Amino acid sequence: MTDLFTTTVAAIAPLDADAMRAAEDRQMHLTKPPKALGRLETLSIQLAGIQGKAQPVIEHKAIAVMAADHGVTAEGVSAFPAEVTPAMVFNMAAGGAGINVIGRHVGARVVVTDVGVNADLSAAEGVRHEKIRMGTANMAAGAAMTREEAVRAIEVGIRLVEEELETGLDIIATGEVGIGNTTAASAVIAALTGESASKVTGRGTGITKDALPRKVAVIEKALVTNAPDPSDPIDVLAKVGGLDIAAMTGVFLGGAAHRVPVVMDGFISAAAALAAVRLCPECANYILPSHVSIEIGHQVVLNELGLTPLFDLEMRLDEGTGAALSMSIIEVAARILSEMATFESAGVAGDPTEADADLTR
Amino acid sequence: MTDLFTTTVAAIAPLDADAMRAAEDRQMHLTKPPKALGRLETLSIQLAGIQGKAQPVIEHKAIAVMAADHGVTAEGVSAFPAEVTPAMVFNMAAGGAGINVIGRHVGARVVVTDVGVNADLSAAEGVRHEKIRMGTANMAAGAAMTREEAVRAIEVGIRLVEEELETGLDIIATGEVGIGNTTAASAVIAALTGESASKVTGRGTGITKDALPRKVAVIEKALVTNAPDPSDPIDVLAKVGGLDIAAMTGVFLGGAAHRVPVVMDGFISAAAALAAVRLCPECANYILPSHVSIEIGHQVVLNELGLTPLFDLEMRLDEGTGAALSMSIIEVAARILSEMATFESAGVAGDPTEADADLTR
Repeated sequence: MTDLFTTTVAAIAPLDADAMRAAEDRQMHLTKPPKALGRLETLSIQLAGIQGKAQPVIEHKAIAVMAADHGVTAEGVSAFPAEVTPAMVFNMAAGGAGINVIGRHVGARVVVTDVGVNADLSAAEGVRHEKIRMGTANMAAGAAMTREEAVRAIEVGIRLVEEELETGLDIIATGEVGIGNTTAASAVIAALTGESASKVTGRGTGITKDALPRKVAVIEKALVTNAPDPSDPIDVLAKVGGLDIAAMTGVFLGGAAHRVPVVMDGFISAAAALAAVRLCPECANYILPSHVSIEIGHQVVLNELGLTPLFDLEMRLDEGTGAALSMSIIEVAARILSEMATFESAGVAGDPTEADADLTR
Repeated sequence: MTDLFTTTVAAIAPLDADAMRAAEDRQMHLTKPPKALGRLETLSIQLAGIQGKAQPVIEHKAIAVMAADHGVTAEGVSAFPAEVTPAMVFNMAAGGAGINVIGRHVGARVVVTDVGVNADLSAAEGVRHEKIRMGTANMAAGAAMTREEAVRAIEVGIRLVEEELETGLDIIATGEVGIGNTTAASAVIAALTGESASKVTGRGTGITKDALPRKVAVIEKALVTNAPDPSDPIDVLAKVGGLDIAAMTGVFLGGAAHRVPVVMDGFISAAAALAAVRLCPECANYILPSHVSIEIGHQVVLNELGLTPLFDLEMRLDEGTGAALSMSIIEVAARILSEMATFESAGVAGDPTEADADLTR
């Protein structure tokens, strides 16, 4: 264990109960029936607890896109060739990818990190250069990377949070790009939860139904070959994970340590979040769910972490697109707490105690 | 039937099939696996069909909040007193209500119309003055309003769309404020669908569980007393509806006639949308769902219209808040079509025919 990883995990503290109480009290006095804004209200209270402010602020936003290749693509587990990874990094750096459009829309900066793309991107502009190795090794034949490399990848994510804090950071979304990474995410989730590979494996970018059993078999082989220790998340990330996944785990840990809410994106991000929570259970309070991807393993992780997604738009692009889109909802939850009038300030009659707050369908 | 209502209904045309085909084709060439953006893609194609543009634009946005009182409040059907309606109109005009916060957040102007508040608001600034009467009559004792008044209220909504088009309007959300309006909405939905009152009635702003049977009984009495004709939506709106609901029906019809997408909000808005579709089935193509409220009758209407909400955040504030929040999602759907790079323009290898597009969980 190196210093940054250890100190970061040690710095993760409980939510601020005083700020949460103040936020909850204010919600009850805003000009609306009590609890009428539903999850926007609970979200605002959680944000208060995370930021330690009765009126949390979501202004400076970043989307951390971790780019890496996966040696397991040699097994034919993806519908797209591995060359797409560096091409998509250039597309993101040029502002043409889906995540760029959504990032601009929600006012979030997109920070693309090369943490392990299997191509020389050193001349690429608009990319954060943190390459640890030229993609992972094929996990079906042995460990994807060493334990030391996995920790370094986690620290890439932690440092990203710390760098972004320098320019201002109120919320961060997790995203990635890397052909083959749904295979690694399935393996990580299977290893950490004990679920069978078939229960947590989907068709990724679009392999055919006929090719799915082969993908499942490759994951099963990787799990047998490497025998990752489920009680040791770093062992799991190193043996059957990916550099992108480990770096995202670092973003979850770094955000929690610095009291910055971290938004979970789709399936890959969920694997990273699960690893982060296994490394530090307290980290879970700082993770905000966004959407649920059509990859079946995503719901498995949401259940495991007790999270309910904000929406389900049948998205499966990843890159951080679902997380980025949810920032609009999360930001407005915070703004309601600060900007709505109270019954008193607006001179509206309506004692909140008169209306029953706990309605259900 | 007056001219504006009749000409508006007659002007509602099918979606533009050419624009939809062009949008669908472009989606298949954007730098992502085919259909990986799920409902954002289908939404972009629908927007193309509505606006008649292969690359639809969502820039100018308005939220139409229709304010009116309901004589049925005399029966004790609400947790809040009727005086809250004018107080909330002032709160909205001053920018302090939930809808103002969300409107600012999504960049939409909030247009508050007094279509029938039971108070003299003629001196209120920032309010569109279109009062038809000082609230409806108590529908438990007789018709809520005359047929002529219902048509005039519909035309208030149509004219609002036409006025907003003058300053630029790419999308409009429907909202309302009016103590007692969930009771009227339940009655309208029961009358139009034939469902029993108990199947479409919830606890509104928060009446107690014990008070719910009374609310249901009042609605049943109103339906028996007035015997609205289910095949005549104007008869239904006049006898058991509300001025706010009828005006929102006008917004749905006016939007459709002018090829402007109209976003459905919660339960009250759903009653208005259902009336609009019964008046002109083609109107349904121009209605975009947003959220599903916790009011049980909302889902009944969504099922009836074959609509799936974009999210469920357990909201029940109305005012247009759910619809306004969804504008962020709808806008980004349009932006993706215009701003994302294609495989060709970005130089990314990845023939979309190689990946299977039709994935399911």
